[in-house]
Amino acid sequence: MNNYREELSFNTPDRVNLINITSKVQEAVDQSGITEGLCLVNAMHITASVFINDDESGLHEDFVKWLEQLAPHEPVSQYSHNVMEDNADAHMKRQIMGREVVVAVTDGKLDFGPWEQIFYGEFDGKRRKRVLIKIIGD
Amino acid sequence: MNNYREELSFNTPDRVNLINITSKVQEAVDQSGITEGLCLVNAMHITASVFINDDESGLHEDFVKWLEQLAPHEPVSQYSHNVMEDNADAHMKRQIMGREVVVAVTDGKLDFGPWEQIFYGEFDGKRRKRVLIKIIGD
Amino acid sequence: MNNYREELSFNTPDRVNLINITSKVQEAVDQSGITEGLCLVNAMHITASVFINDDESGLHEDFVKWLEQLAPHEPVSQYSHNVMEDNADAHMKRQIMGREVVVAVTDGKLDFGPWEQIFYGEFDGKRRKRVLIKIIGD
Repeated sequence: MNNYREELSFNTPDRVNLINITSKVQEAVDQSGITEGLCLVNAMHITASVFINDDESGLHEDFVKWLEQLAPHEPVSQYSHNVMEDNADAHMKRQIMGREVVVAVTDGKLDFGPWEQIFYGEFDGKRRKRVLIKIIGD
Repeated sequence: MNNYREELSFNTPDRVNLINITSKVQEAVDQSGITEGLCLVNAMHITASVFINDDESGLHEDFVKWLEQLAPHEPVSQYSHNVMEDNADAHMKRQIMGREVVVAVTDGKLDFGPWEQIFYGEFDGKRRKRVLIKIIGD
Repeated sequence: MNNYREELSFNTPDRVNLINITSKVQEAVDQSGITEGLCLVNAMHITASVFINDDESGLHEDFVKWLEQLAPHEPVSQYSHNVMEDNADAHMKRQIMGREVVVAVTDGKLDFGPWEQIFYGEFDGKRRKRVLIKIIGD
């Protein structure tokens, strides 16, 4: 069994941002030399997500608006967590969208349906944060 | 390390449907010959889920009603995504229920607690869609 | 490829409880002797979660309150599932928080960002329930 590890890093200008990282993950699969296995991609921070959905700007607007309804940022004082911080909502948004994805690797490629794309979901940006890629297989 | 890949396909008569696929996944584990490892089961489409919960019809009614409250289908015009499409809500419902499950394989069986069952969750049906099963192990 | 399996068990005094299990999972990794691989940690029951977030008591209060808003326990009669049971809300809360996490194992350690901690999320406690740890790798 072989394994490969890589980190991606982000520093988004806005608090909330959805970034397509599919090609970077495929590059990691290429680097790994693994042709059959599993690829884990996870946020290393607890106010961010990695998720798979559609690369469509209207949908991304919808996601941001919807998450804001389910876990509003304001007023920040509504959350017990927000004593020294203001990011409790980001911890919740990340639970809805998920911490990680596990993707099959088949024949050296991310084994995807027609529209699957991997996104980094930032919910408390403006600082350096990381994503971990770990691939195991043969 | 061995690996095994199989696709399931679905074409549900209704827009929303929850289908128990546990026995089909166990058949894939049997086919694989793998006795110790991990089994990934994921929706290959971004308006569908694979999740683990209870096979109880009342609960499934509750899930469908609850998801409709959290991400209503109507009015379709409330979503920026719905220009040529009407399925923005299905993209959101799938995030709540999740894209994939990873299940331990132990002694050739899906290593489950007493009530765990795997479901395909369709949120934008009436057309052919697929689920991927990828198993790695020995 | 090596593999390791362990169960944790819980019997919480309250219906809802969030319990840090990070050190127990690291102990399982130590026991396994696996230095490079993947570690699956999942609830074996369908009214409980395993998730990764921050170990901060204010945030945990916020999570419990937020989940209660998204899927209220009372009135129990609002759910079709609650004929002989009263835990439909727990099945929903578990979908928001997730059934499982998959964590990279690197150099014999859970490969975590600075604040990542693993929690058992109990949403229908007061009885014995279990978590499965399955590790594969070399």
